[in-house]
Amino acid sequence: MGSLDTNPISFSAFGDDAGFQPLNPEDVRGYLHKAVDFISDYYKSVESMPVLPDVKPGYLQDQLQAKPPTYPAPFDVTMKEFRTSVVPGMTHWASPNFFAFFPSTNSAAAIAGDLIASAMNTVGFTWQASPAATEMEVLALDWLAQLLRLPTSFMNRTSAGRGTGGGVILGTTSEAMLVTLVAARDAALRRTGSEGVAGITRLTVYAADQTHSTFFKACRLAGFDPANIRSIPTGAETDYGLDPAKLLEIMQADMDAGLVPTYICATVGTTSSNAVDPVGAVADVAAMFNAWVHVDAAYAGSACICPEFRHHLNGVERIDSISLSPHKWLMTCLDCTCLWVRDTHRLTDSLETNPEYLKNHASESGTVTDLKDMQVGVGRRFRGLKLWMVMRTYGAAKLQEHIRGDVSMAKMFEESVRADERFEVVVPRNFALVCFRIKPQNAMTEEDADDANRELMERLNKTGKAYLAHTVVGGKFVLRFAVGSTLQEEMHVRSAWELIKKTTSEIMNGDKIHPKI
Amino acid sequence: MGSLDTNPISFSAFGDDAGFQPLNPEDVRGYLHKAVDFISDYYKSVESMPVLPDVKPGYLQDQLQAKPPTYPAPFDVTMKEFRTSVVPGMTHWASPNFFAFFPSTNSAAAIAGDLIASAMNTVGFTWQASPAATEMEVLALDWLAQLLRLPTSFMNRTSAGRGTGGGVILGTTSEAMLVTLVAARDAALRRTGSEGVAGITRLTVYAADQTHSTFFKACRLAGFDPANIRSIPTGAETDYGLDPAKLLEIMQADMDAGLVPTYICATVGTTSSNAVDPVGAVADVAAMFNAWVHVDAAYAGSACICPEFRHHLNGVERIDSISLSPHKWLMTCLDCTCLWVRDTHRLTDSLETNPEYLKNHASESGTVTDLKDMQVGVGRRFRGLKLWMVMRTYGAAKLQEHIRGDVSMAKMFEESVRADERFEVVVPRNFALVCFRIKPQNAMTEEDADDANRELMERLNKTGKAYLAHTVVGGKFVLRFAVGSTLQEEMHVRSAWELIKKTTSEIMNGDKIHPKI
Repeated sequence: MGSLDTNPISFSAFGDDAGFQPLNPEDVRGYLHKAVDFISDYYKSVESMPVLPDVKPGYLQDQLQAKPPTYPAPFDVTMKEFRTSVVPGMTHWASPNFFAFFPSTNSAAAIAGDLIASAMNTVGFTWQASPAATEMEVLALDWLAQLLRLPTSFMNRTSAGRGTGGGVILGTTSEAMLVTLVAARDAALRRTGSEGVAGITRLTVYAADQTHSTFFKACRLAGFDPANIRSIPTGAETDYGLDPAKLLEIMQADMDAGLVPTYICATVGTTSSNAVDPVGAVADVAAMFNAWVHVDAAYAGSACICPEFRHHLNGVERIDSISLSPHKWLMTCLDCTCLWVRDTHRLTDSLETNPEYLKNHASESGTVTDLKDMQVGVGRRFRGLKLWMVMRTYGAAKLQEHIRGDVSMAKMFEESVRADERFEVVVPRNFALVCFRIKPQNAMTEEDADDANRELMERLNKTGKAYLAHTVVGGKFVLRFAVGSTLQEEMHVRSAWELIKKTTSEIMNGDKIHPKI
Repeated sequence: MGSLDTNPISFSAFGDDAGFQPLNPEDVRGYLHKAVDFISDYYKSVESMPVLPDVKPGYLQDQLQAKPPTYPAPFDVTMKEFRTSVVPGMTHWASPNFFAFFPSTNSAAAIAGDLIASAMNTVGFTWQASPAATEMEVLALDWLAQLLRLPTSFMNRTSAGRGTGGGVILGTTSEAMLVTLVAARDAALRRTGSEGVAGITRLTVYAADQTHSTFFKACRLAGFDPANIRSIPTGAETDYGLDPAKLLEIMQADMDAGLVPTYICATVGTTSSNAVDPVGAVADVAAMFNAWVHVDAAYAGSACICPEFRHHLNGVERIDSISLSPHKWLMTCLDCTCLWVRDTHRLTDSLETNPEYLKNHASESGTVTDLKDMQVGVGRRFRGLKLWMVMRTYGAAKLQEHIRGDVSMAKMFEESVRADERFEVVVPRNFALVCFRIKPQNAMTEEDADDANRELMERLNKTGKAYLAHTVVGGKFVLRFAVGSTLQEEMHVRSAWELIKKTTSEIMNGDKIHPKI
């Protein structure tokens, strides 16, 4: 907005006659330079900050005023409160001592791209509403599809022209699951001649019990009956990957019972332990039932840009959709989840809207993709820019180097764990996540070992010098050591390992263990 | 990630022994300064760029290479390709000559906040995963709730401690609709003793026919039967707002037919014409059926921080949820949709997940909000920061000034339209959107008038000097003139009006009209 005073000379934001100009050039430069200074300082000092902060629930509301201010304040005041009150309460995902969950990787090119997107602030719901934003997203997805050697059936444009498949950038994997679940649901309802949604009670969905909980939530969001959501047991015999024989058996039993197998989610690199479901074998089973196969490769999919990891996607040409999140391992800041589908129309059939106020010649011509019809909402950030900037600036070679560097550090850590007889590696390492634990020794029961591992995690995290998360695999409490935070170098992995060894010694040497604290 | 070489001195990103360091300090500063320079130049020059670009579908793929690069390139190359190929193909939402849809407003403080969020790159799915990110979001929502004078029942924290209600920042209004629809659906299924989801075929939802099409899509996503989604006709007699008597009649008929009225979406400021559904009266009708009431105030809700507009929310204390998008009118760049609910548990009952790897003491204590349980996905950007920075820096007074400035410019435009007998204002202006058209005159039929208005829009948009969108109200083709793009000043509104008058004269003076081109 501007003021009713059109004098173009006066530009100061506050307290003058020109009115309020929240994008005046001085402020834009000034505020952004302060932000860049902060970021620069932050990356230099984040290593020395406690990764996990020691704050109590409600601490920030106690520090900042509870009522919104009436009058403006200099941006320096905002930044000061941010530095003083907010930063110390952050969990520092950017810390090189962060080993929890999966890292959220990042890069200078991605941040710059995201910054420009914030400033241009376009809303590319239709092609016309921002042609270049749509085309850049489509191009970035086609580039990444090529790096992953996805079949051309998943590409928006091939050398032969516009393809039948295509992609879209969403905010989270859950959205990718949800929109494909809805497309599969509607197709199954049509196929079975359901009157309205009445047939939904017969539709069944499938995933290994290691699948991220958000899949089961997405099924509920899409209206599937909780009783029809099958969580298929896995075990050590398949390294916690989905057993296609079991899948077949369960799907067949459902079909025999008059149910309609509709959708299977296979995971490449589970969150818990990085297990890999066999994509091709799952696709073969699904084909027998005409069920939709989605591959969730949120984390590990990025590794498949390296030839030595690509085999994990074997069979991808026979699935229906695949998603992966460059914000996890491809140096592109949140949020950025790529979804590709083999047949775009199967998505848009369920997701298309066509209100009068969005009608335009380009959409009506059928020659463009309106990305609103491949996602939950209408509005959308210009997310394609950061992803394109990452690939354009670093190139495939550097991206591969980055993946390999992480894997190499994880391998080093794994070897250290294996060389220390107090520990065990619980599942084979597939990528850059190592799942390990103190193993039962001397007179320890399995329960004692669980307590010792829980105690180890608590103590490590309290030091502020490392942050690890845990999982339970095969009934055992296991520590997850996820390598790959962007600022991480070998020395950080080594330091964490030293800290783990030292803390374990303290625990094993009889410092009191607090079971189940 | 880092390299296996731990030498901390060498920091150049490419081609040396230190390996690939995508966040090395030089690059971070260098790339971000280049981005800031671009933004600064962009805001200075965007006024002179065609608002709507003249590009053909596929243009960008033709300009940029179709294959992803293997080797890195200097960031200057990335920026050059961006400037040369991408920027000319953008629809410039930041242009002061942008009058289409609703503006996506912005500010220096918001962009700075978003930049810092991109750089810190935290993922605040649980409180523990980033305490300050969760608390900042909660605080920002409580502040905005106070500016809107929402009842304390919608606040996360009140002076009495933790409230029963609360908020969450989502990406789009559609997500706010979806998650509340799912909560209402599940509650209705429980209430009616449905076996699994079998009862879903009896659940009905309601909204005025002016409601954004994304609502009807969200209903389908949540599994409601298309036959049970009621679009209630509106007309000029209520200025296209929902008639509570009609709503009551339809809900009663549904109940009499054995259906279960479940959810009503009321809009404050429809996208088509800024119509306002009567919130209090809708709540009163809903209460008779125990139906959930959601208020979609995506655009116009922001105006309710000014006392003179607050009456549009009268009755809000009797509804269940409300959403509004500061990226539309509160100077906070995309994406930022605030959702408040009166009873947080009604959301989390449907959306909670509890996988082992996210378990932690804070969550188990029940004293914190885990925001993943109030949204579709798990991952989430640190969106609270930009919204807090906007309120902290500008204060309520400047935000109100900004709203009032836009409304005042819209009023000026409206008066100009009314003063020219060739035009009519089609619906009363409520906020900063003016819906107008060339009215039938001389020997023109209604159809001729529609053609003339369509022609007017096409010609205006082709000049590159203004971009307007259209709608259909009461069967008539209508131009939407949405004031409020952040760089807009009175002179831009005046120029657009001059252009509209001139172009209309050309059309009316017999330059050929292309009907329905």
